[in-house]
Amino acid sequence: MQIGVIAGGGCLPLIVTNELKKRGYKVITVALEGLADDALSNHSDVFESINIGKAGQIIDFLKNNNVKEVILTGKVPKKLIFERKTIKPDMRALKMLFSAKIRGDNELLKLVEKELLTEGIKIAEISEFCPELITPEGVLTRKKPTKEEWKDIEYGFKIAKKIGELDIGQTVVVKERSVIAVEAIEGTDETILRAGRFVKNSIVVKVSKPQQDLRLDPPAAGVDTIVIMGKANAKILALEAGKTFLIERDKLIEKANEINIIVVGVKQP
Amino acid sequence: MQIGVIAGGGCLPLIVTNELKKRGYKVITVALEGLADDALSNHSDVFESINIGKAGQIIDFLKNNNVKEVILTGKVPKKLIFERKTIKPDMRALKMLFSAKIRGDNELLKLVEKELLTEGIKIAEISEFCPELITPEGVLTRKKPTKEEWKDIEYGFKIAKKIGELDIGQTVVVKERSVIAVEAIEGTDETILRAGRFVKNSIVVKVSKPQQDLRLDPPAAGVDTIVIMGKANAKILALEAGKTFLIERDKLIEKANEINIIVVGVKQP
Repeated sequence: MQIGVIAGGGCLPLIVTNELKKRGYKVITVALEGLADDALSNHSDVFESINIGKAGQIIDFLKNNNVKEVILTGKVPKKLIFERKTIKPDMRALKMLFSAKIRGDNELLKLVEKELLTEGIKIAEISEFCPELITPEGVLTRKKPTKEEWKDIEYGFKIAKKIGELDIGQTVVVKERSVIAVEAIEGTDETILRAGRFVKNSIVVKVSKPQQDLRLDPPAAGVDTIVIMGKANAKILALEAGKTFLIERDKLIEKANEINIIVVGVKQP
Repeated sequence: MQIGVIAGGGCLPLIVTNELKKRGYKVITVALEGLADDALSNHSDVFESINIGKAGQIIDFLKNNNVKEVILTGKVPKKLIFERKTIKPDMRALKMLFSAKIRGDNELLKLVEKELLTEGIKIAEISEFCPELITPEGVLTRKKPTKEEWKDIEYGFKIAKKIGELDIGQTVVVKERSVIAVEAIEGTDETILRAGRFVKNSIVVKVSKPQQDLRLDPPAAGVDTIVIMGKANAKILALEAGKTFLIERDKLIEKANEINIIVVGVKQP
């Protein structure tokens, strides 16, 4: 059994490749240059670092290694598509990029899927291999939200879903039924910190987009999310149950308990 | 003929009171303490500076001066409702605040209107008195958008309307059919500057909320908006025609022409 991994930034690719190795897979990794952690080479059977712009080269590497199924994992900052100097796209990438009508995350990721499929490579869902990453439903910390805070969580969830529907971002920060910050290209951490400059005890809500394909990296939170929330004096992290990832769940919950942050998994009503 | 003015921050209240004086009105001004420009006292017939939390005091002042019609003008940062130390609301303000289900701008402003009406005071539309403030339709600068840029303006307009519908904010920054930044509590300037950290030549779109009541201050742009856009390397300012204000239009257009920024007024299709 072998499986390909296309790895972006963050620690999720390391966790995923480790998990795959544990389960006896031969792991063939494409590390996206400048994004993926170098340590990945020690966790893979076959490894190559390739610039994200070299779509042709990535596909050739996967084909040469007889990969039929690939996992996409790790962060690829959307702003990269505007950094054409550092990316240097090849013809195949350029063709893909120019066929995009709207350059939202999901649109771009669908293009990648289509391109891989023309070469007989399927994208697999990470959760099939690492179900323990999926956010469960319910309160995960010792501290629980108040009745008033549950209303804010519900309000934030609704707004976050709308923002996702428009393919803008996945995170909103709310307080007392007001939207304090909306994430677009700047990412979750900066959104949380910005909200912290205006209010304390805010509620961070992160959800999957309604059109989110779970074979592509779902939204995730890790220990660093909790640390950032601590800096921003945020109070509650509400994640969509079943459709987001909790990276290193035990460590994350431990840290949250330590600094009095509440973590909950919420299902869409 | 006399008219009341409740004045928040920025230079719009000065422009409005001046215009009213020119047209022969007796102007009775409530300057919101810490927000309104002190110079307003020289442009008003009757003037008092009152803390925004003292709703009872504001209403009594207007009634004592026999005001039947009042204009609300100038910026009132929404974050103020979270700064309860500086505001010190009176009973009347507290009652109003706690009757709000969702604390979006429009919801809060509707409460103010309702409260004034119980005292026989109507809110008048600024544009009745100062029609030259309203953004006209069409290209207002020497430079015009390209065909590709018009597509982005249309895309941004659509997204901005949706963001307004959710009562989040009025401004979005887009580029190549991607949303770069969404305004929430941080305000337009910070939103433009943030987008500038990620992309150049972006398009700033500012619209009224679909549910915007034009008797309340419509979204506005001034010379400072153009200066901020210059700092952020933004390229186009698209404002909703008929439903936003251009403050000091001539100076604004002159500055835009000088630093090669395009300004357009756009009607909802």
